[in-house]
Amino acid sequence: MVLQCFGRRKMAGGATEAAEVSVSINDSAMANIYSERVAAIRALMMENGWDAVVISASDPHASEYPAPRWRQVRWVSGFTGEAGDIVITADEAGLWTDSRYFIQAENQLEGTGIELHKTRMPDSVPIPQWLASRASVVALDGKCMSADAVAEIESALSSASGGERPYRVADVPDMLDRLWEGRPHIPVSPIITLDEDMTGESRLHKIAWLRKFLLREECDSILLSSLDEIAWLLNVRGSDIAYNPLVISYLYVSLDKVCWYVLKNMQCRRDQDTEDSILELEGDGVEVLPYDDVFIGLSDMENTGEKIFADTSTLNHNLYRYIAGSNGEENIVRGISPVPLRKSVKNIREIEGMKEAFLEDGIAMEKFLYWLENHIHSGVTEWEASEKLTSLRSEIAGYRGDSFENISAYGPNAALPHYSTPESGSAVIKPYGLYLVDSGGQYIFGTTDITRTVPTGECSPLEKEDYTLVLKGMIRLSMAVFPEDTAGCQLDVLARNALWRSRRNFGHGTGHGIGSFLGVHEGPQSIRQNLNPQPMLRGMITSNEPGIYRKGMHGVRHENVVLCVGAGSNDFGDWLEFETLTLCHIDTSAIVPELMDRDETRWLNDYNRRVYDTISPHLPCEVAEWLYKKTLPLQG
Amino acid sequence: MVLQCFGRRKMAGGATEAAEVSVSINDSAMANIYSERVAAIRALMMENGWDAVVISASDPHASEYPAPRWRQVRWVSGFTGEAGDIVITADEAGLWTDSRYFIQAENQLEGTGIELHKTRMPDSVPIPQWLASRASVVALDGKCMSADAVAEIESALSSASGGERPYRVADVPDMLDRLWEGRPHIPVSPIITLDEDMTGESRLHKIAWLRKFLLREECDSILLSSLDEIAWLLNVRGSDIAYNPLVISYLYVSLDKVCWYVLKNMQCRRDQDTEDSILELEGDGVEVLPYDDVFIGLSDMENTGEKIFADTSTLNHNLYRYIAGSNGEENIVRGISPVPLRKSVKNIREIEGMKEAFLEDGIAMEKFLYWLENHIHSGVTEWEASEKLTSLRSEIAGYRGDSFENISAYGPNAALPHYSTPESGSAVIKPYGLYLVDSGGQYIFGTTDITRTVPTGECSPLEKEDYTLVLKGMIRLSMAVFPEDTAGCQLDVLARNALWRSRRNFGHGTGHGIGSFLGVHEGPQSIRQNLNPQPMLRGMITSNEPGIYRKGMHGVRHENVVLCVGAGSNDFGDWLEFETLTLCHIDTSAIVPELMDRDETRWLNDYNRRVYDTISPHLPCEVAEWLYKKTLPLQG
Repeated sequence: MVLQCFGRRKMAGGATEAAEVSVSINDSAMANIYSERVAAIRALMMENGWDAVVISASDPHASEYPAPRWRQVRWVSGFTGEAGDIVITADEAGLWTDSRYFIQAENQLEGTGIELHKTRMPDSVPIPQWLASRASVVALDGKCMSADAVAEIESALSSASGGERPYRVADVPDMLDRLWEGRPHIPVSPIITLDEDMTGESRLHKIAWLRKFLLREECDSILLSSLDEIAWLLNVRGSDIAYNPLVISYLYVSLDKVCWYVLKNMQCRRDQDTEDSILELEGDGVEVLPYDDVFIGLSDMENTGEKIFADTSTLNHNLYRYIAGSNGEENIVRGISPVPLRKSVKNIREIEGMKEAFLEDGIAMEKFLYWLENHIHSGVTEWEASEKLTSLRSEIAGYRGDSFENISAYGPNAALPHYSTPESGSAVIKPYGLYLVDSGGQYIFGTTDITRTVPTGECSPLEKEDYTLVLKGMIRLSMAVFPEDTAGCQLDVLARNALWRSRRNFGHGTGHGIGSFLGVHEGPQSIRQNLNPQPMLRGMITSNEPGIYRKGMHGVRHENVVLCVGAGSNDFGDWLEFETLTLCHIDTSAIVPELMDRDETRWLNDYNRRVYDTISPHLPCEVAEWLYKKTLPLQG
Repeated sequence: MVLQCFGRRKMAGGATEAAEVSVSINDSAMANIYSERVAAIRALMMENGWDAVVISASDPHASEYPAPRWRQVRWVSGFTGEAGDIVITADEAGLWTDSRYFIQAENQLEGTGIELHKTRMPDSVPIPQWLASRASVVALDGKCMSADAVAEIESALSSASGGERPYRVADVPDMLDRLWEGRPHIPVSPIITLDEDMTGESRLHKIAWLRKFLLREECDSILLSSLDEIAWLLNVRGSDIAYNPLVISYLYVSLDKVCWYVLKNMQCRRDQDTEDSILELEGDGVEVLPYDDVFIGLSDMENTGEKIFADTSTLNHNLYRYIAGSNGEENIVRGISPVPLRKSVKNIREIEGMKEAFLEDGIAMEKFLYWLENHIHSGVTEWEASEKLTSLRSEIAGYRGDSFENISAYGPNAALPHYSTPESGSAVIKPYGLYLVDSGGQYIFGTTDITRTVPTGECSPLEKEDYTLVLKGMIRLSMAVFPEDTAGCQLDVLARNALWRSRRNFGHGTGHGIGSFLGVHEGPQSIRQNLNPQPMLRGMITSNEPGIYRKGMHGVRHENVVLCVGAGSNDFGDWLEFETLTLCHIDTSAIVPELMDRDETRWLNDYNRRVYDTISPHLPCEVAEWLYKKTLPLQG
């Protein structure tokens, strides 16, 4: 699944447009509701003497996909994009979002009185600077913004005041509770634990490692708030957030205590799994405490001078302020949490689990592609295809849900990398052109992510060229061998070179890290244009997904997932390469053979043969026969 | 000419070793002299109450190649490497240098009592930290260190003192003058000016541009100390430094004044060229003042609150301190000089001049290669070949010298990327294996840099493979098309991918900027592994020189120089590509055709044909015929 390309100073025009999601315009009745909500917030501002209010799109854990409770931007404005913050003053209201959402935001904001502010454009004014020229007292929900984000606002206010007028950030946790009728509660779901056989490392071992880190940093404790970090460290999983097997919680680890703050006395946490999990955790010395007691827990350190490590790029402002207030800001050691890097380097058991996941997932994918080819003439819709795929995945033992919302897109719809297939009225997949399906599963033993672009019949010369050039990129990156200390940004061009030489490009990253029965997007490594210095390390699992998007025409993306492995040592150094984990054939019918280099054709034929050899024993006879034909070598 | 690869955290073992220069061990008489010099410095320390002395390898202008006067590290220690600083305390003395020079330094320091400190290694302690744990009063020649470098030492001393003991940096300009008998003077050479027809932009226009920059930065003035920046801005050239057409000077530009501080009343600056140049400059409102008067000039700003822009990464500490002392540190605006970036983007006249230079240079190179092939059987030495090449270049109208010392290296000698061909006793070039020649010329209309690896007869399979893989890299980078905003580090892998896939690599950068009748190395762009974010811009001229080095066996490097040009615009954005400026055939006899991709062979054949078509009309008949055969297409 693509992770959008942010850091480029300008995005290629075509790709940017293609990345926009078209959405039907809200009717004026809805627009009125949003205007009223903005008015209600303005009344709150008047009442409290605030000049401006910031409504962020984040949750208290800096999650990529916040639960419904924290879709406050959507509640205020109707805007449904994944990224966008709102600022309201007495006479202005704006939504700040990036190029992915420009058209969508314009449509969805129509009639609401909220203006669109385009971010990451040459002349765009970021929220802190915009605020600073208009407001002295800014209110925000400090739970839903990181300490760093609020510090930026404070710094802009300070600069603008020049020491001549007072300024203030008012931290108002759950600010919208009073106005938002029926606001969803914090979600809860059963909690399970994973044993060492699955995770390859016990929570006690992970905690001991984290304590060693604390000693090295001369710290007494650390507060983790990122849900995937906590799930990894404690070997716990839940399903509090759609597609993400996470438990909403905080984790405090000191040299002699581990306190897990989690909603625990709720109806749906009285199941056997949760009770067993909590007992197991307590047996390992983890104190399992109510979610909101994190403040009580932290108050223990008041004036003790305890040095607490905090990653302020994710820790929310409200908690940061609480710690700074009770124990002094000078005792907070700011830094990058060591968990994401360690988590990204998979151990042997995790790798085995991921391989199992990609095998099972590949079987489901091949069954799906067989089914699709045999039903295309009876008029399958994108939605029906998506449902079929999910139902095939759900038959796998260990399936815990999809790892993100299936992208099932035919023809021009595939030109939207983030296309959301509508349940009703989705397009019929025609027996010509290209169908793109980007999907993945959460299994108890691993997480998958795969994109296949399927020629459903005759393709145009341009479709074939695009299909081939994107494939060349995916193959070139798959074949890469590189010395240790090479970062993803140094490899990215391998996936783009064939497209670039034909003056084509795509506006998203080439690869993101993938969790082990965790989030389908994880860092710290990436393969993209942004100069992220994180080297690729043995054991990292990353997607390889170049694409191309032509508005109103078609989209192509080929995505495999690759494991970074050793490739020997010699006088020139220590070498690494990629092992492809994904097991699902690549259709050769839309390839222009003359565009393929010898090595690329060899790689493709080897890959398809490996897919057949590995997957066919698990397929019904007729599907295996079909796959045999599909994986016949391309001549070239 | 290769610019060494620094930023890698570890360098590939083989390449690092190959990069080391073997030098004969000094005899003990010389070692004694160096010991005595260290002792004399220690006496100076005692006398003045200094705990330590730093001797840097730089000059007052942060030059890459300092004039003999500033080879103070060599004078103290006998070490002849281009990079290396010395620190002396009462009982320790050390030289800090990088992996290029480890073996050379060990040899040259033997018996001197000076220890080698290896920099950029995992456990290396940088000079500031090393000093801080041993000294409180550190003396250095502030003229020969940048303000930033001295600030780092001060900061380390401050941290180490913890506010509990006094510390101090004693700035002692020309500290070694008292000890160094016969120390060379600051070099002087005739000064010439280049007219607008040649530079494409008058000095008045460049000064106006710099003043606009000052206004934008809210500054009143700027002090330039980098010699290539000054030469570019004033359109002046000299030959104060070997291989670099520069004039040792400072330049002060304010909104209403331009003051050029240069040694002017010397014997060899009483020539007509210099006199005409000074008159011309004065006619343009440039005050030409004595070099040392820079202090008098700067004293004009005392307590005026004049905001002066300074690039403290190059401005020397002594001048920085002087400005800070007289006008307040708060009035120094620190930043990156805008000159290097503007200078790197060549205008049309400069590009035309560079093309002329590469044409003339190519003719000389082809004559040289013809001569070499016809003399190889009579036993030509590396030195003789080098002399022949220089003599052919010197016949070109507008030749002003070589752009660096020719690297003329046969067989195992070519495994040293920085091999210095000895005048006496250099190797005979045999009629088998590989001969590498890296050289360039300074012409009044441009600067060149080219490397050819020449199969002088039968080559081993490994030599051929290496030759081919390096060539594939050079070609792949030459063929690159890329969107605007792409940095060199994002393209570097194209030059390495073929080598990497065979687990081979090279330990230096792939490309450096090249000046227009200026230094053969310039920034700010580069093509290398280090994550330098500077995008490639239209008009930048950069080398493309992958290589491979096998200690004791052979070395291969293929170097062309490329100009960044537009490659059209479409829905996907604005495109750039490289146009190769170098015109000298690439020998096909050592190529393994099966290793070449179709596109690569096509590029090579097109290139060789272009070389023949362009160069042959300028060659004597028999050389043109020879070149025709040399450029027959490779079948593949």
